Amino acid sequence: MVEEFRDLSRLSFNQMTAGKRGLREVVDACVCGGIPWIGPWRYAVGEAPAEAGRLIREAGLRASSLCRGGMFPAATAEERRKRIDDNLRAIDEAAAVGTDLLVLVNGPAPDRDIDGARRMVVDGIGEIASYAAECGVKLGVEPLHPMFAADRSVVVTLGQATDIASQFDSRWVGVVVDVYHVWWDPKVYAEIARAGERIFAFHVSDWIVPTPDMLMGRGMMGDGVIEIRRLRAATEAAGYSGPIEVEIFNEALWARPVDEIVGLVANSYLKVV
Amino acid sequence: MVEEFRDLSRLSFNQMTAGKRGLREVVDACVCGGIPWIGPWRYAVGEAPAEAGRLIREAGLRASSLCRGGMFPAATAEERRKRIDDNLRAIDEAAAVGTDLLVLVNGPAPDRDIDGARRMVVDGIGEIASYAAECGVKLGVEPLHPMFAADRSVVVTLGQATDIASQFDSRWVGVVVDVYHVWWDPKVYAEIARAGERIFAFHVSDWIVPTPDMLMGRGMMGDGVIEIRRLRAATEAAGYSGPIEVEIFNEALWARPVDEIVGLVANSYLKVV
Repeated sequence: MVEEFRDLSRLSFNQMTAGKRGLREVVDACVCGGIPWIGPWRYAVGEAPAEAGRLIREAGLRASSLCRGGMFPAATAEERRKRIDDNLRAIDEAAAVGTDLLVLVNGPAPDRDIDGARRMVVDGIGEIASYAAECGVKLGVEPLHPMFAADRSVVVTLGQATDIASQFDSRWVGVVVDVYHVWWDPKVYAEIARAGERIFAFHVSDWIVPTPDMLMGRGMMGDGVIEIRRLRAATEAAGYSGPIEVEIFNEALWARPVDEIVGLVANSYLKVV
Repeated sequence: MVEEFRDLSRLSFNQMTAGKRGLREVVDACVCGGIPWIGPWRYAVGEAPAEAGRLIREAGLRASSLCRGGMFPAATAEERRKRIDDNLRAIDEAAAVGTDLLVLVNGPAPDRDIDGARRMVVDGIGEIASYAAECGVKLGVEPLHPMFAADRSVVVTLGQATDIASQFDSRWVGVVVDVYHVWWDPKVYAEIARAGERIFAFHVSDWIVPTPDMLMGRGMMGDGVIEIRRLRAATEAAGYSGPIEVEIFNEALWARPVDEIVGLVANSYLKVV
């Protein structure tokens, strides 16, 4: 088993862990709390990504990723084209904000044909992969928990995400391993090993029991049942040594002052991750 | 694609689809509605399983399964022993009620060691399998949806359930395929084919969007996104020709008169399954 961390050098604070607060407030809190990385969302940087990038850099932080592109499947070719265009904009925004990684949440099926929607995901990534490479932005295919299969992502296992990523250049298309989405999978350790250098990001939070809400019920690391350190060790054995992003959607957490959230995150990271 | 059914000969009404009503009321409604099979629960037959069996038989129905055994993982050897004893009683009850199938919902881990809990499931089945065979009761390992991994079942995919069942005699230990639990899985069709003769039961309901509740949010067939007929066709191609049990946990449905529920189930079965 790997040892606990002694510093915060790999810790990234996903902006959404502080709810819908503005980027500047979250950046300031990370600086005060000694967290060196931040994971911004498009809603917060979309209008002025270069300015957001400058704000992050001038505070001495680095952006570990931009959330999020994806959402490829749609009922009509025209709508799928619009989604592609939006992903191309997201790649531009990632580059402007100064991160080398766009996280892809791939979207639900427009009808009952889940396999058809899965093909649309592969087609969509195919449409944007070379532009992403030109811009120096990697694409991270994130499998979501299967409970989101009908409304957020037809990509639901790490094995499936790796199969998709493997159809593209390993330098530019990989996977995002979020413990909340993959912890239940009997094959997760085998699939982390197989993903290897395709692992572009590692996200942590916890699965609390009972789960208060499907979307907003994530817990602070240590408050739930996920073997977080074991999963971290597996990603490291597979070769991943990048930032570890804390992404917690939880309204009770969001109601706290942002400095307190940052403190809780840093403390739990050191003890549990 | 297989054709729709023209009669109800394979339809089984899982008792819980009518909520916590008594067995006699549900039996009467099935008889009136022309449904030939019923799936009783232990809470309704536990005290007097032979009497329940007689009630079902004398009404002209057959019991497709008994729900449920399992719940093997526990923190202490003593508690695990108690769970084994309870499963042995469940096997007796299944035999007394006149069904040849006990459905196993295998239980959550007592701590964070999910792999350890998975070994306890295999050990538990090992402790009861020969007694089940002696009694003429098959054991159906049911994978639950991964959203139940922390509080109901460490067995979460059909592949995993088949791997577990494959450690035992194929005549007596198999799997239960419930569309609600497996529909999201990119490997579900391959795994249905692999399970083959190990498929001991096929359960249907639907995944409605948005899901109103993790436990109580199942929908009537046709109201959601699951490709039910395609899954039915896959089980038939794999060799399954037994009863098709409708199991819907939904409080809005339960609030209706039982005859109305039975009518809705029969109608949806003919149109959608």
